[in-house]
Amino acid sequence: MVELDQPLFRRVALIGLGLIGSSIARGIQATGVAGEIVATDRSPEVRARAREIGLADRIAESSAEAVEEADLVIACVPVGVCGEVAESFATHLAPGAIVSDVGSVKAAVVAAMQPHLPASVHFVPAHPVAGTEDSGPDAGFAELFVNRWCVLTPPAGTDALAVERLRQFWSALGANVETMEAEHHDRVLAITSHLPHLIAYTIVGTADELGSVTESEVLKFSAGGFRDFTRIAASDPTMWRDVFLTNKDAVLDMLGEFQEDLSKLTRAIRRGDGDALFEHFTRTRAIRRGIVSLGQDEARPNFGRPAAPLAVPDKAPSK
Amino acid sequence: MVELDQPLFRRVALIGLGLIGSSIARGIQATGVAGEIVATDRSPEVRARAREIGLADRIAESSAEAVEEADLVIACVPVGVCGEVAESFATHLAPGAIVSDVGSVKAAVVAAMQPHLPASVHFVPAHPVAGTEDSGPDAGFAELFVNRWCVLTPPAGTDALAVERLRQFWSALGANVETMEAEHHDRVLAITSHLPHLIAYTIVGTADELGSVTESEVLKFSAGGFRDFTRIAASDPTMWRDVFLTNKDAVLDMLGEFQEDLSKLTRAIRRGDGDALFEHFTRTRAIRRGIVSLGQDEARPNFGRPAAPLAVPDKAPSK
Repeated sequence: MVELDQPLFRRVALIGLGLIGSSIARGIQATGVAGEIVATDRSPEVRARAREIGLADRIAESSAEAVEEADLVIACVPVGVCGEVAESFATHLAPGAIVSDVGSVKAAVVAAMQPHLPASVHFVPAHPVAGTEDSGPDAGFAELFVNRWCVLTPPAGTDALAVERLRQFWSALGANVETMEAEHHDRVLAITSHLPHLIAYTIVGTADELGSVTESEVLKFSAGGFRDFTRIAASDPTMWRDVFLTNKDAVLDMLGEFQEDLSKLTRAIRRGDGDALFEHFTRTRAIRRGIVSLGQDEARPNFGRPAAPLAVPDKAPSK
Repeated sequence: MVELDQPLFRRVALIGLGLIGSSIARGIQATGVAGEIVATDRSPEVRARAREIGLADRIAESSAEAVEEADLVIACVPVGVCGEVAESFATHLAPGAIVSDVGSVKAAVVAAMQPHLPASVHFVPAHPVAGTEDSGPDAGFAELFVNRWCVLTPPAGTDALAVERLRQFWSALGANVETMEAEHHDRVLAITSHLPHLIAYTIVGTADELGSVTESEVLKFSAGGFRDFTRIAASDPTMWRDVFLTNKDAVLDMLGEFQEDLSKLTRAIRRGDGDALFEHFTRTRAIRRGIVSLGQDEARPNFGRPAAPLAVPDKAPSK
């Protein structure tokens, strides 16, 4: 826990008020880590809603207006539009400001944003590895980043003090902060996040198209495993389209590895090789325990989905 | 809710006290749906533990002993041993008893059990579609089946009254009961449960073997999506080995469909076809809403995983 004598930043500008932007806003409000929040969103409806629910001290009409005099600017937009968003506010940035983002892909974001930014600002890309399947300004909550990782990928030569200040900012919102190279980040996330989403999107689509099993049967019997996939296959379509388009190489690499392993298990099933299946399934169980013991998930069975109460029959005679 | 003047069954015999068997025992105790529970397990440790925690009125030393004079016998064992378990108790069954199971595969279980059973009993195979990633006699709880489906697959010619009595039993434990043919059940479960487990087992294994990303990185950043797969990849290895060996054809069929769809999405990524990705991801989001609206999952974001509290910094000056 960071103890603050005074806010880390005088004014934070948030460009984009979806799940992540609105959660940062709420986190700042809860912790006082910044003196003032100025926010904007390209959607007039989102700006109106943000005003209504008090997400910021001031809602600006444009990103250019929002970044004026801010000492921290965070683009909370899909990675596919990071470049144009950076271009839209670049000439309005205050000298010495830190510019960051929250994109799930880093190398492509650096390549898209950096060329637009003046030499007088510090560019420190960031990726808070946190989210839910919900989107929009009402979906955010202050605790979203608590005990989650936030990865910073400062390009070589970035001012160390700027990196340290952004690290303190994310720490204050509850995140564990780690620094790595953008390319390595993209490989790590390809396996831990992008490939799982692609697989979930695929299988949910497959189930939707079967001739021999109806959609209503799929929905009814989803508790057998399928429903765990549907949560991540309900994530924001725009965000995920951009992730796959901008982290193409790492995702295709991991997909190749996955395909090899799936072929191995398929062959074991076809040949009736029970020992190979048992060995594999025992190994994967241990990995789950590792995740729970690292605090990245909870040990309560079934993700702690509450069981409905069991109706105890009335013992009195009845017709 | 079934209102009972008297127990539906005089004595239920439970063969096997893992997650499902122990949950049935607790459900019976909570509802009084049976007058007496006699249970057994092939493991002496499980029998001892079951005695300790009071799972049954009596723990028998063998399945042959357990089924004596029971009017309902449920084999709660992996599908791979259903045949030998049926053989072990067949000659001890009381005439008129209902014999059932809880296996995730039905056609193979019917083929394995039926030849051993005397003509004087009623065989009504069942599959409660419920579970958690935990195993063993301590994992069970009375509410496991509430609002979950239980599928009965009585072979043609089964006594209708026996089917109705088993339906009432599962209703009393809170389940919604449906009847279908064993082969159709196996196709429905192949897509809603078996394929999702196979895919989850595969990707968790893939992540464990990568050279370029360390295991500790996979565990750390699992909140990006990967951890949702690890829950079902932590399910009981014996149970799942048996499922894939005994529902081979339907699983391989569904796997073929999945592979085609994965190729389509892979091609869209390779070609940078953002529209195709966006269209697919929008469709899958709607399926999630269908599952939530059917009550087969909860709408709370992130499966209702509780967020850790955000530590609010101490505003008092400190060093």
